[in-house]
Amino acid sequence: MSQVLILLGSASDLGITEDGLSLLKRGKVSFSLRVASAHRTPQHVHELVKEFLDADGQVFICVAGMSAHLAGVVAGLSTRPVIAVPVSRAATAGLDSLLSVSQMPGGIPVATTGLDKAGFTNACLFAAQILALSDTKLDAEMKAHRRELSEKTIADDRKNGIRFDG
Amino acid sequence: MSQVLILLGSASDLGITEDGLSLLKRGKVSFSLRVASAHRTPQHVHELVKEFLDADGQVFICVAGMSAHLAGVVAGLSTRPVIAVPVSRAATAGLDSLLSVSQMPGGIPVATTGLDKAGFTNACLFAAQILALSDTKLDAEMKAHRRELSEKTIADDRKNGIRFDG
Amino acid sequence: MSQVLILLGSASDLGITEDGLSLLKRGKVSFSLRVASAHRTPQHVHELVKEFLDADGQVFICVAGMSAHLAGVVAGLSTRPVIAVPVSRAATAGLDSLLSVSQMPGGIPVATTGLDKAGFTNACLFAAQILALSDTKLDAEMKAHRRELSEKTIADDRKNGIRFDG
Amino acid sequence: MSQVLILLGSASDLGITEDGLSLLKRGKVSFSLRVASAHRTPQHVHELVKEFLDADGQVFICVAGMSAHLAGVVAGLSTRPVIAVPVSRAATAGLDSLLSVSQMPGGIPVATTGLDKAGFTNACLFAAQILALSDTKLDAEMKAHRRELSEKTIADDRKNGIRFDG
Amino acid sequence: MSQVLILLGSASDLGITEDGLSLLKRGKVSFSLRVASAHRTPQHVHELVKEFLDADGQVFICVAGMSAHLAGVVAGLSTRPVIAVPVSRAATAGLDSLLSVSQMPGGIPVATTGLDKAGFTNACLFAAQILALSDTKLDAEMKAHRRELSEKTIADDRKNGIRFDG
Amino acid sequence: MSQVLILLGSASDLGITEDGLSLLKRGKVSFSLRVASAHRTPQHVHELVKEFLDADGQVFICVAGMSAHLAGVVAGLSTRPVIAVPVSRAATAGLDSLLSVSQMPGGIPVATTGLDKAGFTNACLFAAQILALSDTKLDAEMKAHRRELSEKTIADDRKNGIRFDG
Amino acid sequence: MSQVLILLGSASDLGITEDGLSLLKRGKVSFSLRVASAHRTPQHVHELVKEFLDADGQVFICVAGMSAHLAGVVAGLSTRPVIAVPVSRAATAGLDSLLSVSQMPGGIPVATTGLDKAGFTNACLFAAQILALSDTKLDAEMKAHRRELSEKTIADDRKNGIRFDG
Amino acid sequence: MSQVLILLGSASDLGITEDGLSLLKRGKVSFSLRVASAHRTPQHVHELVKEFLDADGQVFICVAGMSAHLAGVVAGLSTRPVIAVPVSRAATAGLDSLLSVSQMPGGIPVATTGLDKAGFTNACLFAAQILALSDTKLDAEMKAHRRELSEKTIADDRKNGIRFDG
Repeated sequence: MSQVLILLGSASDLGITEDGLSLLKRGKVSFSLRVASAHRTPQHVHELVKEFLDADGQVFICVAGMSAHLAGVVAGLSTRPVIAVPVSRAATAGLDSLLSVSQMPGGIPVATTGLDKAGFTNACLFAAQILALSDTKLDAEMKAHRRELSEKTIADDRKNGIRFDG
Repeated sequence: MSQVLILLGSASDLGITEDGLSLLKRGKVSFSLRVASAHRTPQHVHELVKEFLDADGQVFICVAGMSAHLAGVVAGLSTRPVIAVPVSRAATAGLDSLLSVSQMPGGIPVATTGLDKAGFTNACLFAAQILALSDTKLDAEMKAHRRELSEKTIADDRKNGIRFDG
Repeated sequence: MSQVLILLGSASDLGITEDGLSLLKRGKVSFSLRVASAHRTPQHVHELVKEFLDADGQVFICVAGMSAHLAGVVAGLSTRPVIAVPVSRAATAGLDSLLSVSQMPGGIPVATTGLDKAGFTNACLFAAQILALSDTKLDAEMKAHRRELSEKTIADDRKNGIRFDG
Repeated sequence: MSQVLILLGSASDLGITEDGLSLLKRGKVSFSLRVASAHRTPQHVHELVKEFLDADGQVFICVAGMSAHLAGVVAGLSTRPVIAVPVSRAATAGLDSLLSVSQMPGGIPVATTGLDKAGFTNACLFAAQILALSDTKLDAEMKAHRRELSEKTIADDRKNGIRFDG
Repeated sequence: MSQVLILLGSASDLGITEDGLSLLKRGKVSFSLRVASAHRTPQHVHELVKEFLDADGQVFICVAGMSAHLAGVVAGLSTRPVIAVPVSRAATAGLDSLLSVSQMPGGIPVATTGLDKAGFTNACLFAAQILALSDTKLDAEMKAHRRELSEKTIADDRKNGIRFDG
Repeated sequence: MSQVLILLGSASDLGITEDGLSLLKRGKVSFSLRVASAHRTPQHVHELVKEFLDADGQVFICVAGMSAHLAGVVAGLSTRPVIAVPVSRAATAGLDSLLSVSQMPGGIPVATTGLDKAGFTNACLFAAQILALSDTKLDAEMKAHRRELSEKTIADDRKNGIRFDG
Repeated sequence: MSQVLILLGSASDLGITEDGLSLLKRGKVSFSLRVASAHRTPQHVHELVKEFLDADGQVFICVAGMSAHLAGVVAGLSTRPVIAVPVSRAATAGLDSLLSVSQMPGGIPVATTGLDKAGFTNACLFAAQILALSDTKLDAEMKAHRRELSEKTIADDRKNGIRFDG
Repeated sequence: MSQVLILLGSASDLGITEDGLSLLKRGKVSFSLRVASAHRTPQHVHELVKEFLDADGQVFICVAGMSAHLAGVVAGLSTRPVIAVPVSRAATAGLDSLLSVSQMPGGIPVATTGLDKAGFTNACLFAAQILALSDTKLDAEMKAHRRELSEKTIADDRKNGIRFDG
């Protein structure tokens, strides 16, 4: 069964998932991505959460914009780690979603990894880091990925570095 | 049965309710006030909502702070009007709660009447205004209350007005 | 006569109304949409409000941007429910309008359903929810609309769900 | 008759007026200070504005907090200069009032001199500066006041200046 | 000589001036528009201000973006009314400029009419309203302009009004 | 050795840790709490992180205010999960710290559980939830704690519930 | 003569200067602290700046609140480094001052070290760091101060560190 | 060796550097521009900083977006002046980066010159102003550049000035 359940509040959020899903696949982390809304399909959210817990699923990633309640709702239904990815839309610059997920009352944690695409990529990495605590292969993969990031930046440095001698 | 169900996310929010509850009582609007948390007692919220709907309850008022998801959760369980009162706490000046309730995605409305005590008083008045659409006595009460507000302001004007003739 | 009076502060706001008006029509909620400005045509606003109240109109929806005073002005002229839709323009990301309508002083409620198109759609739904309290047919329509939203999300889930087995 | 009409949305705002009123008195600017609310006593606001205009009043100062609509309403009823003083209350740090008055749509100007006590003092000075354009004595008074401010700062410098020679 | 001195912090702000300048011309308000920067040409600002005061100029309008100090600097050099138009640029949504001009310390007033084009149009109208206090013709022009705004909105209402009878 | 390393940027943040540490103790989660600053003692941070990783530590919790860089620095040194608790201080309402930790660039995740005391309590719970994925006893403890929260809320409801029959 | 000129917009800002001035004294950096306002005493500011430049002064530190224009004005009068310390007052949480100083237009730099007391302390350290580039003794003092900060944090760690073994 | 070390957190920030680098070149300020990330290549950052200090480098300029920790990390490794340029990306309007760099805790100064391109240009000018304290030629260049800015603005005034005589 899936180790990670990714819930998107809306299918329109699929656009931010590409990099994160690739990282999960590369790490051979099993996952399900589902569209389910805390507001439009609360019953469906409950069922997906229950099914995932029954199958001993490990980590949730919840993606939602505006009044982003999905992660909070899932956190209220489980004691598994819930990672939230707020999505910025339209006018209010993402502050609505960011504050909706990052200020949970004491007792029911939700952990936020930031807005939009970078936030989703980091949510997938964070989920993998959690699973890597008891999976040596995945742990090695995480370290390899980090080395590549580092090497890419160092290559960028080599390509773009400038020296002007006054 | 109660016409209005008031849900407080936390008993610590009782402090903002005094004026609003007095207005409901004065208008003879029946209500229940309950403490229930979208995050700590999601099942309880569902039961209270279901029970209220079964008893043909009319209007919800949901009070919550920080990541204020309570109103959104209730709105997802019913097509009755849901009024939200965000509560400001600590650091982020209430923006967390205000944005959490006021930016619901299209399709599942939540109506916000503002933060804290003034917001709760206005939520009670707004609920009474809704019920007054089919209750002539309550409608007269609403108008009487408005006249009193106006008279109080005019009395304040009489008492505090200053004239300086240069 | 109309049950709902929709006031637009500016004809340029017509672009956000399509979905909401369709929902009102589908629910057979009678409405008038008028352009009237709290600042440019205060007399006209007064007349439209008076005429609507005289004809036993039920609910106001007020749409305005920037220093969005229209809803507050209408709320001061009536004890019927007033729903505000702030509109985001230009630089300040809609915060000007959102705060202008959502922080009414205690005693004169205005209920906000959020910014722009989603906010207007939800204002129409919220008005319909109010009217549905004494209109069984409309109540059934509201529930049908909610079911469709739910079914659409579940269809989105079926179409977009991904499973990766590690 | 009065040259300046000061409208307070609430008698509770009297606390910020002391310094400003002293400045008006010192400049022998005639004024009326009245309590009137755009929301609770719209009719009263209309009457006070009309009466002031009929008596050839010159400048309005409007003081209000939260959803501060008073200045906008007055600006819609007159082409005399309207100065707004937003008042910060409670949670949202005055941003609600500041944005409510400072983002009027093109065509109906409201001029804001800032929040709270400093804002009110400056509103009174600004009104006096306007009237001083056709009042030589008041103009001299304005310049005298400015010199005093300057002298006070220079005296503060003399008293508090520190020199450390390393 | 000119009654109004308009200072632009940068020639790039010319784009927001069209409507406001037309209104001044229509009202036969004499004005000079100059480019001068509080930071890049402080001496030039001082000279322009002095020259304007010496020629008995009446009202300043100062337009600037980012750390918008121009209006404050001019206000420190004169006791004539200074109107500020903050300009929104780039990232921070105009809040930098709006707060830079609207929070002057008590004693040195600057009056803000809002951001960008609408703010500049309103600054010109506000300046004209000030001058109209002692100019009957301009006063009549102001009222005529207001009537036209009102008529345009009422025409918009006629053209765009919708009625749906349920 | 410790499963959780808690780093406080300043000893002055100890005041927010009481509830969270109790929860870790109750769950028999081994932890070290250390004071170390990304800015004042970068070398010490590196050593503590290295020592913890060498001893197969599992999860980091980083607490810091203002320009809160501690969590980001730790995240750059390890692929273990890093949870950040921003602390609100003084003027800027915690937004400085919250945004400093919650907007990490893609590739180096930091997960934020919210500001101050509630944020720290939730960070401890979140760390425990992670460890509970491979610790049945701790998992049971998490569920027991959740039940207690729920029971406390339901007891609050019983004690504070109000019913008014109109 | 003084190497550093510290300008306070208001004597009321003296309260934030204690730690910073001690650091300057310890480093034997000569300085003058003067009270001078960009708005109330622009002439005085010009004179102090000119006098300082004539005496070959090196670095400016400008402290001001609200619409904090002092640093920008000084930067426009000199090409010496200008460091700004915005001061938070009252309602708007320091954002007014912070944005007023930190968004200077390209060409006239002002460098901000943060709000209030911490900001002033850092401004003094930053000025000393600049002077230390050509002063070996001061450079050694800077490094000694940094070591002490580090040692204090490590002592805090020793005193407050907690270890719980599960 | 280089007097200034410019560190870019990401090669994608190169786009904002053109004007600033030209100014450094014109002033014959020697510099190195390197790509190095506090999060992806912390070791590389340490090495570059050490190497620069060993070669008696003078001033750091650190450019980074989102959770912009680079400047803080560098400031923790050196007592040389560190100038930060926050970069605005995506949703949160640069406030994340601006607050990340401008609120350093007391003791470890970072000086911010503003967001994006104007911020980087000003960082380069500020670095040059620091170096000009002990370099007469560079000092003359700084003054020449300032004169040109001033002349350009005055030329803009000549070209764009408008006079309308009423």
